Parts: sequence; structure tokens; C-alpha cells
Amino acid sequence: MTEFELIAQLKPLLPTNDFVVMGAGDDCAVLELGSPDTQTLFKTDAVVEGVHFTADTEPERIGRKALARCLSDIAAMGGTPTAAVVTLALPSHFDAQRIAGIYRGLNRLAVQHQVAVVGGETTKNPDRLLLSVAVLGTVPRGRALLRSGAKPGDAIFVTGDLGGSLAGKHLDFEPRLAEGRWLGQTGFVTAMMDLSDGLAGDLPHLLAASGGHGAELLKSAVPISRAARDRAKESDLAKPAIVAALTDGEDFELLFTVVPGKTVALLDGWKAEFPGVKLKCIGKVTAKPGILLRGEDGLRPLIARGYEHFS
Amino acid sequence: MTEFELIAQLKPLLPTNDFVVMGAGDDCAVLELGSPDTQTLFKTDAVVEGVHFTADTEPERIGRKALARCLSDIAAMGGTPTAAVVTLALPSHFDAQRIAGIYRGLNRLAVQHQVAVVGGETTKNPDRLLLSVAVLGTVPRGRALLRSGAKPGDAIFVTGDLGGSLAGKHLDFEPRLAEGRWLGQTGFVTAMMDLSDGLAGDLPHLLAASGGHGAELLKSAVPISRAARDRAKESDLAKPAIVAALTDGEDFELLFTVVPGKTVALLDGWKAEFPGVKLKCIGKVTAKPGILLRGEDGLRPLIARGYEHFS
Repeated sequence: MTEFELIAQLKPLLPTNDFVVMGAGDDCAVLELGSPDTQTLFKTDAVVEGVHFTADTEPERIGRKALARCLSDIAAMGGTPTAAVVTLALPSHFDAQRIAGIYRGLNRLAVQHQVAVVGGETTKNPDRLLLSVAVLGTVPRGRALLRSGAKPGDAIFVTGDLGGSLAGKHLDFEPRLAEGRWLGQTGFVTAMMDLSDGLAGDLPHLLAASGGHGAELLKSAVPISRAARDRAKESDLAKPAIVAALTDGEDFELLFTVVPGKTVALLDGWKAEFPGVKLKCIGKVTAKPGILLRGEDGLRPLIARGYEHFS
Repeated sequence: MTEFELIAQLKPLLPTNDFVVMGAGDDCAVLELGSPDTQTLFKTDAVVEGVHFTADTEPERIGRKALARCLSDIAAMGGTPTAAVVTLALPSHFDAQRIAGIYRGLNRLAVQHQVAVVGGETTKNPDRLLLSVAVLGTVPRGRALLRSGAKPGDAIFVTGDLGGSLAGKHLDFEPRLAEGRWLGQTGFVTAMMDLSDGLAGDLPHLLAASGGHGAELLKSAVPISRAARDRAKESDLAKPAIVAALTDGEDFELLFTVVPGKTVALLDGWKAEFPGVKLKCIGKVTAKPGILLRGEDGLRPLIARGYEHFS
């Protein structure tokens, strides 16, 4: 059984209650905690030594990444983060300087986004450092951008450049908080998520959540990062740059869909608001399931679970 | 540097904001999220294989414990839990049946206390299973019971029996949620926390948070568990039962202080409300710092950091 199959089995069994607007399965949970104007976002995530960072990673970047991943999920709902709690699972012989550095990086990003860090548990994890972060956020009532609102004919957009994140971006990416909030306020966005498993891995989740639609992507429109291009040039054994852009994980860019007829207005507004951040329309949602990629050689299927096929 | 010293160094550096009523340092953080009647409680905690449970522990009890620890912290604020998110860090070769069992135990306890489980991340932790849980709760505005309100002359109470938790209670304890809420409503309780590091380890935290007071405890009033007594009888090398009651971790009972003159009213009300749960007055808060234990041999100091001295 894969991890995905396990989660699919467990998810329907999770208990719910009247506080829940959206439970497990989106970038954040959405809760109704009695505020007249806002709803609460809730998310947890973890980074693990040897998986998300190495023994050599600068401590500041470890702490920064641990929080940034959660903030990216708040961004993907169109929300604003408010508070975080941290569980630090420490190996038996920990280096106090390293821990202080981790908190320095985490705190700095928290200050940058006005997030309070309101709890810092420590526990033992004898073999390796693990950092688990839970974040609360707020979103105007009824305005959380779920994965489930995409409709056939909607345009598909991504922010930034894709692929090659392991060269450094996975530690230093900027969670797209201002962008996510702005997108929520346009009223044009029908579904949104952040990219953590690669476009080919994540887009199927959005399409499935939206009711089993498909998509047609324009190969030449997919924004490929310099890191992905450089890596492709280094070795014949490396992924071609377009494959890296479609399948590399940890992009932490926003993937979203826009109602038909509003793509130009959205692009114009974006350029005025975020002149330094790339935004590309890469295709459209189709009624027919499956993802097709239009290239020089015509229209070819990008397998729905593309991640496994490319890896 | 010990873990405690490290935390003490890091805590003052944590960022805060206008949402925060109480940040790191209490059983839960208390936040102000816009609800007119309530405040929000926020807490995270983790259990780790080989530390909080073993490879042989029944999966249901692992999941139950992971959530119960956080619920005990909500109880210690006089609050009601509302929602939880879970990060499951899985070893490379995980057993799907074991994971399903863990969720079964966690979900069952969640249902019992009407807690929604609204997110279930998984990640890799190659060497051992780790389960991190974050919980939200709610408490009537201004009624959260902090550690910081104890005053000289207040009576000191504990629920249940202490010591010997490792014999089984650490997996099966009932978080004292109804009791914590009831205590909050009496208006008699000045400070509260849950016992996780043993009375001798935790009481100093409450006294320090309350302004550096001391305490005088009556040795014969300390409620000793049957498990602690049985263990003491088994071997001359085991801790004497009273030492186990004072120093064993993971009791998950409530420790709280009560305004002078209300102890009889509190005990009477408690007996009517919770006839099956023991409640003992074990001493009083003193102006003079340090903890003294009154026994047959008179008044002797219980070292403030008793945990290390006894262990």
C-alpha cells in the first residue's frame, strides 16, 4: 500500500463536528470558531533531517523552511497567518547553537509575516532532528479558496518558475501570502492549491477535488526555472528541463483556476500589484478527465499520476 | 546545556502579535481570534517510538495517547477541545495495519470528546514512528486558567493518584476535561496545570509562573497510586512509593490552587459532580520560595528541581 492509498483509506474515518467548514484534504482546514467576520485556517506540517534538509543545512534555513511550508498552505487558501506552535524533536546529543539558529530563522520569517510563535515543545527523536509546525490563519468569512471549485473552461495559472527547487529554492522560497490574499479578493479564482509534489502530481488533486475534470496544458507555457534548465544541461542523465518543471517537488508556487473571460483582467491586475512575480496561464480545465499536454508533436497524455511515471 | 535551559533561552525571543493573550509557557497558548464570547486555545505535542511508546505498544493506545496528551493540556486551561491536526512521521517500511490502528485509537478518543480531526499529514522519519498532534480549543472569554495566578495562602490540590504511570496509565489516562471545565466555572481556582513531569518537577513551574512563591506539602496527603505502591514492593531497588508519586512523569492529573476559605466548598461540590474521581488537598502556597514537605520527621526541603535529585 502506498502512502496515498493509506491516506485515502483513513480520511473518510476522521471525526468531524459543527466547527468544521472544510476538514482534511485541502491545503488547510477551515473552521468556524464564532468570529462574525472571519473563519479560521488550521494546518500542520513537518520537516525531517535527511528528508527535507541535511545535517549540513544552515540551521536558519531549516527553521525558515519549517514555517514557510505551513505559510504556503495558508497562502493557498487566500488567508493570513496569525500564530504558530512548534514541536522540536531533538536527537540525543543536540547542539544548542544549531537549535538557536533554527529558531532564529523561524522567528525571522514569523516576524516578516506578523505571525506569533506561541508554543515551543521539545521532545526526543534519538536518530535525527524533526521539526513539526502547526499554524493558524484567518480568512474573510466564506472566502477561503478551496481546491474544489474548478469548472471546465476555467483557465489554469501558476505563479513563479517550476522545477529544480532542490538546488536551493526549497529552503528559501517566499510563501505567496500577499499574492494568495490578492487572488482571493479578485473574486475570479475558482480553486487554488500550493505546489509541493510537482505540477503533474498536484494538478490531478485539484481536478479530482473539483469533481473529476481534466486539463489541457500548453507545454511551451509551463514556466521552467533556471535551476531546472541548468541541471538538465549538466548531464545527459538529468531530467529534461520540462520534465523537471512538471515533476520536481517543493516548488511552493500557487496553482489556481480562473473563471473564463477574466484571464486578461487578472493578468493586468497582477502586473500592477506584483510586477516582480511571474504569472503564467498554462492551460485550461476540460470536462473530459485526464491531463493532456500540447507540444510541437501535438496533444499527448500526461499521465494523471505523472509523478510516479516520471520518477 | 539542558533542554530546560535551552527553552528558557529561546522563549523570550519568540515573536508575538495582537492576537496573543498568553504565548509560550503555559499548558496552551490563549488567542483572541475575533469571537465575542470565547478565546481560542492552541497546543502541540508529539509522541515518539522508543520514548513515549514501544514497538510492542498496541497501535490504538499509541494514537489515543498522542491525542490525550494534548487534550490534557486543554483540560488544564479549563477549556473544551474543538479540532486536531495530526502529522504522522512514518518509518521507511510502515505497516498499514498499524497506522490504521493508531488512527482508530485517536479517532475514538476524538469522538468521545467531540473533537474534529481536520488534517492528517504524513512524512518520512526513517528510523521510528513519530506522531505530532496540534489541538485547538475554546474557553469562555477571560476564563482560561493560567499557571500564574497562585497566591500565598492558596490551597494546593491534585486530582487522581500519582506515580507509577508507566505500568499502563500513561497510555490509558482520561484527560480531565469535564473536571477542568467545572473547576474553571467555580471561580475558586487561581492557577492550574497538568502533571506531566511529576509533582516535584511541575509544581515549581506553577510557583515560578505565579511570581516565585513556595509551597508546603503534607507528605501523608499526597495520593499514591496502587501501581507506585506495587512497584515499590517488588524490589528494594525500586523508588519508595512516595518518591514515585512525587517524581514519576506522565500522571496527566490536574494540579491547581484554590483561594483560601473555599477548599471545603470546592471539595463538597467536587464530590457531588465527580464522585468517582479522587481530589486531594496536599498543601498550601507560601510566600517564601522553595518547597517543603511535612512528614513524620518534621519539615524537610523538597528540592525545587526535585526531579533531577530523585532520579
